[in-house]
Amino acid sequence: MPIPHNAKKVFQGIIFDVYQWDQPMYDGSTQIFERIKRRPSADVIATVGDSIVVLSQEQPTKPLFPSLPGGGIELGEDPKTAAMRELLEETGYQAESIELYSEENGGGHKIEYINSIFIAKNCTKIAEQHLDAGEKITVGFCSFEEFLQLARNPKFTTARNLIIDMYEALLDETKKENLRKKIFG
Amino acid sequence: MPIPHNAKKVFQGIIFDVYQWDQPMYDGSTQIFERIKRRPSADVIATVGDSIVVLSQEQPTKPLFPSLPGGGIELGEDPKTAAMRELLEETGYQAESIELYSEENGGGHKIEYINSIFIAKNCTKIAEQHLDAGEKITVGFCSFEEFLQLARNPKFTTARNLIIDMYEALLDETKKENLRKKIFG
Repeated sequence: MPIPHNAKKVFQGIIFDVYQWDQPMYDGSTQIFERIKRRPSADVIATVGDSIVVLSQEQPTKPLFPSLPGGGIELGEDPKTAAMRELLEETGYQAESIELYSEENGGGHKIEYINSIFIAKNCTKIAEQHLDAGEKITVGFCSFEEFLQLARNPKFTTARNLIIDMYEALLDETKKENLRKKIFG
Repeated sequence: MPIPHNAKKVFQGIIFDVYQWDQPMYDGSTQIFERIKRRPSADVIATVGDSIVVLSQEQPTKPLFPSLPGGGIELGEDPKTAAMRELLEETGYQAESIELYSEENGGGHKIEYINSIFIAKNCTKIAEQHLDAGEKITVGFCSFEEFLQLARNPKFTTARNLIIDMYEALLDETKKENLRKKIFG
């Protein structure tokens, strides 16, 4: 359920805003309810031949972890533009075509945090990496089977629904083939 | 990585506090980093004979969903006490013994949100449900196999690490038997 229209923004931060409102309870009383809105992000499943791009990434408060290309969506930027920008900045790669895989709330019940996942097909290198002051990134490649196993690595950082889809593909051959077709088909 | 000691609490909410600090970047510059601290919660895997207690729950902003007994830890309350209290309030059941299963950050990198999971063994009904004004709860029971399948229900609400452990048990017989022993052994 989205944050209701009558909610007040009681704090505006850099990536987190806090909202509160009076919520009617089942017994007729009201309680102040509180929710977070987090700056949305986009991740990219980028293919090069029959491989998928996987980053080894390090950030000032986060030791080495595998991830997909991606990052925060800027204010006023649409998710697809953010996905293409992050892919180019973090890897130097550009896609032949890019399409939405999913757009879901990854924050759970009390946190509104929209994660968009894009599939970027047939990528080629057109530039050098161009990293932020808070990024150290090594670009790597893995097979589809290795990609699915990444879900089982507790350090792998991506949208929650994608991790679940990867586990489901590991449990169910039909789902696996559907995911393979979506990414490479 | 926990919120650093020099971080300032810039907003104090009901369940969410916001912290900020100056974070040195790799190029020597600094940026304001922001993190959320969320009120911690406890969930309970409660056994009755060879069944596990599963709730059908409804909240004012959240339609029907399955969950374990559990909820927010009160200020100053220890997680085990909270787990026993929530089990009693939501189900009327009390455990013969209760032990910690896991205590992990369920909020990801930028949100500190400690989820404690307890295993409450050989529960018996000693009281009637005693629900908050914001809860509608029906108590149900499921087998261990049905419990594992709950991980695959997108509406099932519990700590992220437990969902991953349940998926791992579905993928790996040894992990499944270890989880079964932890819960029932």
